[in-house]
Amino acid sequence: VSGGAPGGFSFTPLPTAEVRRQEGYLVPLADAVRDLVDATIRSTVPEAEVREVTALVEAATERLRARQLDGAAGVHLNGEGYSWQWGNAAVGLRNAAAPPMRIEADGAGVHRADVTLGAAHEGPPGKVHGGVLALLLDHLMGVAASSGRRPTLTGTLTIRYRSATGLGPLRAEAWIDREEGLKTVVLARVAAAGATTVEAEGVFVVPRWAREYAARERANGTGG
Amino acid sequence: VSGGAPGGFSFTPLPTAEVRRQEGYLVPLADAVRDLVDATIRSTVPEAEVREVTALVEAATERLRARQLDGAAGVHLNGEGYSWQWGNAAVGLRNAAAPPMRIEADGAGVHRADVTLGAAHEGPPGKVHGGVLALLLDHLMGVAASSGRRPTLTGTLTIRYRSATGLGPLRAEAWIDREEGLKTVVLARVAAAGATTVEAEGVFVVPRWAREYAARERANGTGG
Repeated sequence: VSGGAPGGFSFTPLPTAEVRRQEGYLVPLADAVRDLVDATIRSTVPEAEVREVTALVEAATERLRARQLDGAAGVHLNGEGYSWQWGNAAVGLRNAAAPPMRIEADGAGVHRADVTLGAAHEGPPGKVHGGVLALLLDHLMGVAASSGRRPTLTGTLTIRYRSATGLGPLRAEAWIDREEGLKTVVLARVAAAGATTVEAEGVFVVPRWAREYAARERANGTGG
Repeated sequence: VSGGAPGGFSFTPLPTAEVRRQEGYLVPLADAVRDLVDATIRSTVPEAEVREVTALVEAATERLRARQLDGAAGVHLNGEGYSWQWGNAAVGLRNAAAPPMRIEADGAGVHRADVTLGAAHEGPPGKVHGGVLALLLDHLMGVAASSGRRPTLTGTLTIRYRSATGLGPLRAEAWIDREEGLKTVVLARVAAAGATTVEAEGVFVVPRWAREYAARERANGTGG
């Protein structure tokens, strides 16, 4: 029931209201699994108990796998122009390995995410892993870049770690600095406990499939 | 039973053999939870079944939380010089959100990780999320930098995405290019399906706590 679209996106004729209804029971499962990931790291219960819980988890997985997609979740778009990417590594609502990241636009060009990170995001003792900050920034900056109303992919990402970011609440912000031809330059920062701990610059590029699609639409006189 | 050490590391008097014995039942739990994360994204079972599995997962979490650490897992070091970081976001053996990454040194200065990525690591449709590649590279490059026999933290990380990396097996490699004073410059690449898809350069710096510790040891005539 899905059709191919440029860039590997799938046209899927699922009404937005139905997507939201399914999220109503699928997202709580993902949130419960995210909580289990945290408990799996922090638990100090005895060996016999760990082995019993492992068997429970395997049974839960088997029930979910009774019917499943062949591969990854993909990125879907319906006839209402609504898009969902349930498996996305940064923001996928069904991805328990993704940080609990929700992105908001402030209306003045800044995209922002307030995220609270814990035991699953540790690098140096008690600090956020630099790679997790890179994941958050890469995604947030990509959203900011695409808000310039053309699809983009990350070209080059430069991240400057000013100081360690403690586990707990943090704020990430990204905004378009300038557009140069097919490139969009985005700046970003992470702040925790009132101080900027990370700064980043990203160069995002319009992918070839989008340039070719736009060229075809123009040739057909249907694009704008 | 843990003592503080420079940089927030904990001296923990657990023999290496006991650490390994505990990993014998704790790692299978984390692997089972990683498999559950994948099934949570890909399952298409009916709503009632999802709700029942969610309750099972919540019960498993409650059993694990009967006894647990107050916070994150930290980084531990025992009297045998063996170190473990079970919660680490990139390589933590108890972290089901971490990609299944194992790093090996080839003896000729290259650190390497062969990793197979799936539904939980998706960004563009069917492709690895650029931020997941940044997480893998940040960690691998940090290990390569510290193999120069001094502790380092990421200063600046520059990642060039040459082409999309398909989900499935990939190889990441990192090596020290040069050392300049307190900085270590590391180069890295990701290859998938025989082609280099990502290149990276990182500048790693010796953290202040390590410089101060070394200075104190020298002043005491105990360091070298």
